[in-house]
Amino acid sequence: MRLPSHEDVLSAHERIAPHIHRTPVLTSTYLNGLAGAELFFKCENFQKGGAFKTRGACNAVFGLPDGRAEKGVATHSSGNHALSLAYAAARRGIPCHVVMPRGAVRAKKEAVLGYGGRVVECDPSYASREAALDRVRKETGADLVHPYDDPRVIAGQATCSRELIDQAGNLDAAIAPIGGGGMVSGTCLALSGEAPGTTIYAAEPEQADDAARSLRAGRIIADDAPETVADGLRAPLKELTWHFVSRHVADILTVSEREIVDATRLVWERMKIVIEPSSAVPVAAILKNTDIFAGRRVGVILTGGNVDLGGLPWARR
Amino acid sequence: MRLPSHEDVLSAHERIAPHIHRTPVLTSTYLNGLAGAELFFKCENFQKGGAFKTRGACNAVFGLPDGRAEKGVATHSSGNHALSLAYAAARRGIPCHVVMPRGAVRAKKEAVLGYGGRVVECDPSYASREAALDRVRKETGADLVHPYDDPRVIAGQATCSRELIDQAGNLDAAIAPIGGGGMVSGTCLALSGEAPGTTIYAAEPEQADDAARSLRAGRIIADDAPETVADGLRAPLKELTWHFVSRHVADILTVSEREIVDATRLVWERMKIVIEPSSAVPVAAILKNTDIFAGRRVGVILTGGNVDLGGLPWARR
Repeated sequence: MRLPSHEDVLSAHERIAPHIHRTPVLTSTYLNGLAGAELFFKCENFQKGGAFKTRGACNAVFGLPDGRAEKGVATHSSGNHALSLAYAAARRGIPCHVVMPRGAVRAKKEAVLGYGGRVVECDPSYASREAALDRVRKETGADLVHPYDDPRVIAGQATCSRELIDQAGNLDAAIAPIGGGGMVSGTCLALSGEAPGTTIYAAEPEQADDAARSLRAGRIIADDAPETVADGLRAPLKELTWHFVSRHVADILTVSEREIVDATRLVWERMKIVIEPSSAVPVAAILKNTDIFAGRRVGVILTGGNVDLGGLPWARR
Repeated sequence: MRLPSHEDVLSAHERIAPHIHRTPVLTSTYLNGLAGAELFFKCENFQKGGAFKTRGACNAVFGLPDGRAEKGVATHSSGNHALSLAYAAARRGIPCHVVMPRGAVRAKKEAVLGYGGRVVECDPSYASREAALDRVRKETGADLVHPYDDPRVIAGQATCSRELIDQAGNLDAAIAPIGGGGMVSGTCLALSGEAPGTTIYAAEPEQADDAARSLRAGRIIADDAPETVADGLRAPLKELTWHFVSRHVADILTVSEREIVDATRLVWERMKIVIEPSSAVPVAAILKNTDIFAGRRVGVILTGGNVDLGGLPWARR
């Protein structure tokens, strides 16, 4: 296991700067009122490709030596990492192969194809995705860019929290949604180096609470393909993300499907921004746990904004 | 007729600054590509109250002498001016009476009530709204703050384009949706003083094209309650707005209902921001008239973001 260092974060930030947006930090008087806290929303829904994943994907793709890069990159992903990798590969002009479960959000598949990526469909189970990816790599010799269990990817995601503390100033706490743990690990990596006084929380759907159970058990517990409206948060922790989560995360807060959908709608309605349900998980967690966050300055990472606008979360109830 | 001056704009900006957001200007590589132009989106959907109308309403409310202010303010509005006036009155702690047509967007009525305003319902015709407003004013002695035919309101709306040119730099053109003409008049007032080289366009629904027909005819043509998904643009020009529109607007471009809905969805999907259909009218006009805008730096005023998220424009087709 090669751990990414704080030096890796600094060079990642320099490497990816021409290819990503320094996304804005928004505030909302209304949401501050509900939470009794001062919230700083880092809007990765405005990121290139519509999600923070473009940071890690760009760091991996642009860090490849020319000889390896020409064989392309490959990954599996339920969505955002897929299109972020396709975006990064397109910018470097190299092939990109993406293994996607058949049930993935249509808009995300179309975006991969739109960037010139190749989509290889598989069954939704995690095991099936890994098998399909193995086949693709053997065929093509492409470099594997795992969605999160990769030091290059974690160093890339860490650039998000670096920007957040630069834009929002000193924070008492930071919170991000947790699926496989890439964004949370990046947040741990960045803040342990640059803002060690900031308490780090993660937020997770009750219906996909493997990370919360892992933290309580002191070891990785993995569920296979849990069902949640927060479709970006179904992946299990892996060795590298477990390293950061187990050492630096104060608590993992869980919320119900209903709370996720309500928080999604609240952000659309009040902040006038489009976020995907995964992004609303930390918002729901803050509103559910006002005792933890009241009176504090809290950074909230809104991880992405890729939703099928034909089928809204609250219309599916 | 008392015309607002450029001096009035400067004092409006100073007066309202504590009560409004200096909203961000966003750009989109994707939309620039579609338009073949460099677009600068002034995001008044992020404004207090969810629309630019808060600028004019605050200028009117905070400019009232104490003696007159205590009797409150009154208006009629299909939506955004209503809640903006309620917001401004609430901040000053004075009563606010709003005449609203029965068919107005539910979210807007609720927002007026949420700010402590009083809603007086009437029939949707323009004539019925004016009659109801007369009754309210006689009962209460409240100061009339017309949604747009008021020099204080136009001077307030003008602060939006002042900020836009400060944020985006020199612009070849600016475009805003036109209903009663308050925002467009404010844009004319601000830019004729501060950026006289900027060509000003307005955009209007084909189904409510009374301003376009007025400009061609050289006199005000008013329709009573036209039907369009862009519900903020149904009001007719009045004396004061006609003054600015007839003198400073280069052209009024019209778009179909379908084009408005498609542009609304495009902005949600690609820019990840919630805008109401009225805001999408200039976006649709730019995409329909690439010959006019290609290669130019164009300011686009996204006027508001108040929509009922239960019933999306594209689900109503």
